[in-house]
Amino acid sequence: MATQPDVWKTAITDTSQGSLVVRGVEITEAMEKLSFGAMVYLLWKGIPPKPAEARLMDAILVSSVDHGTTPPSSLATRVVMSGGNPLNAAVAAGILAIGDSHGGAIEACAKIYQMWLNTRDEIPDMTQMASIIVQEFQEKQKRIPGYGHRVYKRDPRTLKLIDIAEREKLRGRALDLALAIQDELEKHSGGKPLPLNVDGITAALMTDMGFHWGLGKGFFLLSRCAGLVAHAHEERTREKPMRPFGQTKPEYDGPRNTPLS
Amino acid sequence: MATQPDVWKTAITDTSQGSLVVRGVEITEAMEKLSFGAMVYLLWKGIPPKPAEARLMDAILVSSVDHGTTPPSSLATRVVMSGGNPLNAAVAAGILAIGDSHGGAIEACAKIYQMWLNTRDEIPDMTQMASIIVQEFQEKQKRIPGYGHRVYKRDPRTLKLIDIAEREKLRGRALDLALAIQDELEKHSGGKPLPLNVDGITAALMTDMGFHWGLGKGFFLLSRCAGLVAHAHEERTREKPMRPFGQTKPEYDGPRNTPLS
Amino acid sequence: MATQPDVWKTAITDTSQGSLVVRGVEITEAMEKLSFGAMVYLLWKGIPPKPAEARLMDAILVSSVDHGTTPPSSLATRVVMSGGNPLNAAVAAGILAIGDSHGGAIEACAKIYQMWLNTRDEIPDMTQMASIIVQEFQEKQKRIPGYGHRVYKRDPRTLKLIDIAEREKLRGRALDLALAIQDELEKHSGGKPLPLNVDGITAALMTDMGFHWGLGKGFFLLSRCAGLVAHAHEERTREKPMRPFGQTKPEYDGPRNTPLS
Amino acid sequence: MATQPDVWKTAITDTSQGSLVVRGVEITEAMEKLSFGAMVYLLWKGIPPKPAEARLMDAILVSSVDHGTTPPSSLATRVVMSGGNPLNAAVAAGILAIGDSHGGAIEACAKIYQMWLNTRDEIPDMTQMASIIVQEFQEKQKRIPGYGHRVYKRDPRTLKLIDIAEREKLRGRALDLALAIQDELEKHSGGKPLPLNVDGITAALMTDMGFHWGLGKGFFLLSRCAGLVAHAHEERTREKPMRPFGQTKPEYDGPRNTPLS
Repeated sequence: MATQPDVWKTAITDTSQGSLVVRGVEITEAMEKLSFGAMVYLLWKGIPPKPAEARLMDAILVSSVDHGTTPPSSLATRVVMSGGNPLNAAVAAGILAIGDSHGGAIEACAKIYQMWLNTRDEIPDMTQMASIIVQEFQEKQKRIPGYGHRVYKRDPRTLKLIDIAEREKLRGRALDLALAIQDELEKHSGGKPLPLNVDGITAALMTDMGFHWGLGKGFFLLSRCAGLVAHAHEERTREKPMRPFGQTKPEYDGPRNTPLS
Repeated sequence: MATQPDVWKTAITDTSQGSLVVRGVEITEAMEKLSFGAMVYLLWKGIPPKPAEARLMDAILVSSVDHGTTPPSSLATRVVMSGGNPLNAAVAAGILAIGDSHGGAIEACAKIYQMWLNTRDEIPDMTQMASIIVQEFQEKQKRIPGYGHRVYKRDPRTLKLIDIAEREKLRGRALDLALAIQDELEKHSGGKPLPLNVDGITAALMTDMGFHWGLGKGFFLLSRCAGLVAHAHEERTREKPMRPFGQTKPEYDGPRNTPLS
Repeated sequence: MATQPDVWKTAITDTSQGSLVVRGVEITEAMEKLSFGAMVYLLWKGIPPKPAEARLMDAILVSSVDHGTTPPSSLATRVVMSGGNPLNAAVAAGILAIGDSHGGAIEACAKIYQMWLNTRDEIPDMTQMASIIVQEFQEKQKRIPGYGHRVYKRDPRTLKLIDIAEREKLRGRALDLALAIQDELEKHSGGKPLPLNVDGITAALMTDMGFHWGLGKGFFLLSRCAGLVAHAHEERTREKPMRPFGQTKPEYDGPRNTPLS
Repeated sequence: MATQPDVWKTAITDTSQGSLVVRGVEITEAMEKLSFGAMVYLLWKGIPPKPAEARLMDAILVSSVDHGTTPPSSLATRVVMSGGNPLNAAVAAGILAIGDSHGGAIEACAKIYQMWLNTRDEIPDMTQMASIIVQEFQEKQKRIPGYGHRVYKRDPRTLKLIDIAEREKLRGRALDLALAIQDELEKHSGGKPLPLNVDGITAALMTDMGFHWGLGKGFFLLSRCAGLVAHAHEERTREKPMRPFGQTKPEYDGPRNTPLS
């Protein structure tokens, strides 16, 4: 007697009917009608985006595409390529470097927004909720993830994403809460700017679009994956293997002003 | 006397002027004007795409976004998540699995197209070039990567990408060569279909858009990275850790018909 | 004016004096006098082991060397090799799979032993300490990591490691505590065996030898690394690329009785 | 009708009889009788080592255990740890960095030794075989992997391994060939030393002990895995997350003279 194999369930992709259907959409129809950003929305959320959501999705994915050669992720990618490995291994090392201290604030911050917004309906006012949250973190002497920047008073990428979200009528309670927390933090910071950074705004917007906080690192790593491919390829084509990385200084020699039509 | 540190060059991203400039484009301008697919084009090629190229780029990135639970990459992602690891480690394992035998045909195939198109100007006719290439491979008893499919006579994703490329006036010499090779292969196959598959068409289109063959795996791994995030998240939210993977059977329980507007 | 580069400190290996010195030992002297297990002890702890400690170190590293094809780590290694990748990428994927749910109990368990032993000197009696610990975990409704086994009433590897530790006079307070916890747990389990498993005994012995709990995963992953190399090599030499892993069944065809002299 | 699942074969570990048996040896017996080096021999070769082989195995595994903070592998490990990741992810990144240009010469060099020794029985004299091999590589203008060192005229680790191999009566044809190639290379190098390096001697000794060249990277990565754990742990315990790696300088502050009994 042959035993039945155990069955486990997946709701992502169906290949059992002779064609490739992702979240209920034939892949060729998706290729025709969806941008890559819109496809990612469908894939991660299970339902297709409205045009405004697809637009915001693209802007989020563009915002974190690269940050030069210094972040742990680009360095890890270049170092692994330098050891003489295929492009996928180099990119994988970069993705490994994306951890709680590098891109991880999106997940941590979205979790806070979602826990409070989903369970504390009795606090309808975001200013009031922000005040309670900030007080709780201060009592525990913990920092709220998603706020603060080494250089900027206000992060230009955050401002741009807020701008697009408002234009597309996608500003929701999470963005209200995120900005209220920023105001509340700066009330107590003695003049020090504590701006909502790109991790924090991503956390707010993914929450307003209905994504689970567990996907937080996903937004950053998919976006940055594009940059890691560029670093791996540049390392392979411009540098010698096994070069010394310590005490060497990268210098930009690319274009300065590329016009977009 | 302090020694000058060695300098090495990068042409990807400039953060030295107080803002974030990728390939000569201020990131906030890119967020405003470029889709994620268009941004990837800019990042990998160094110059921005025309609208037609951005359109094709998106379609390519959508085409390989997922293929269910059986490819090595989704299995590796799920297995690493099942061991109790963060999402980025699980996705990295999936990207590791994308090797010469899984998505690797794009690079191998693009290399062939580019070597022949760049060095054999004396053969202007693609049918003739295809015939010489096929003969060479047959003499070496090697298969040309990018052709053949277990199921399809013609791969629907390939047909869709050809359709979009033609509509967008992006059919170039590489696509001509790719299809001429398909015809030539099927002349000698005794009736067996040897269709240009999704790896092969990606190789042809990236060549016609001017990308270096070394980026071949990049197209596939960036696209599939989106699917791997979905698998990692589903594994974490639907399954128990350390479940046995062998001899268990995945069963699709997602939507069957998702209407796109 | 050239700025001084920032300096950071490392106490592992010195290559600045023209030779290779690890933890203060010339590598050629180490090769002459230390087994690999003894070298690992020196490398991780900073001082060389006594012969008894070297002996126990080797036994711990042998104990977890492999567990067949079903653990997430061996499966991930085989799947990545199957995608057409180099051996190091396949082994890296296996090491990625070693997470909190797979080998992670060593770190978690060693942390408990070390926190209690280092901070609760007022409880000299291990039976009493065990009773308090078990009560605390029961109140929080949490399981103590390092106890329990699907099959064994007593894990043979645990018994063997206890045997060697006692013979080598290396039984210390952590092992006493570990076994006292086992007794206490089984007092309350209604007859269900809750044996100290191989993770738990490794945690106890590394604690008695003075290793930091943060190295817990290190013992398991170094040991298992040897097995992962074997799986990667067997996959490459016995299997075809891109084979389907789901619903296939591994069958052992190796030697049954290998005599050791 | 239920279909039989496909069966695939493995000869490494058998868990089907209620105990854990690796290459035909009960794990508890192995823990009692084998050093970790000896266990690795059994695991990778399928038969247990003689005492002399176990001794040499340990010496090889000790020889490459660490090389400070500059190799790609230690840097990748530290960078990934610095991003805020678990120890296993950091070590995996280091193992990813071990590629064709970093530790990869063992595999490449062992392949050469084994191809020539296994197929050219008509050349019994190693000096003659060395001369033909060197001439072939010179004609192709390729370097033979496993020879040359930035600093040493003779690599002390190589000399020590030769010394142990001879003492243990394990010098075989591969070591003869390896040294004959060294002599032949230096005949034509105009006085420049081209010593058999630690990659080359490992390749020779693994060949003389009967290991398949495909395991070459395994020797290096298992050995270095121990060092990577040390770097990951030191990074986590001594450094802050997300520290800048470029233009910073490591400085050794560990012990200078550790006496081994």
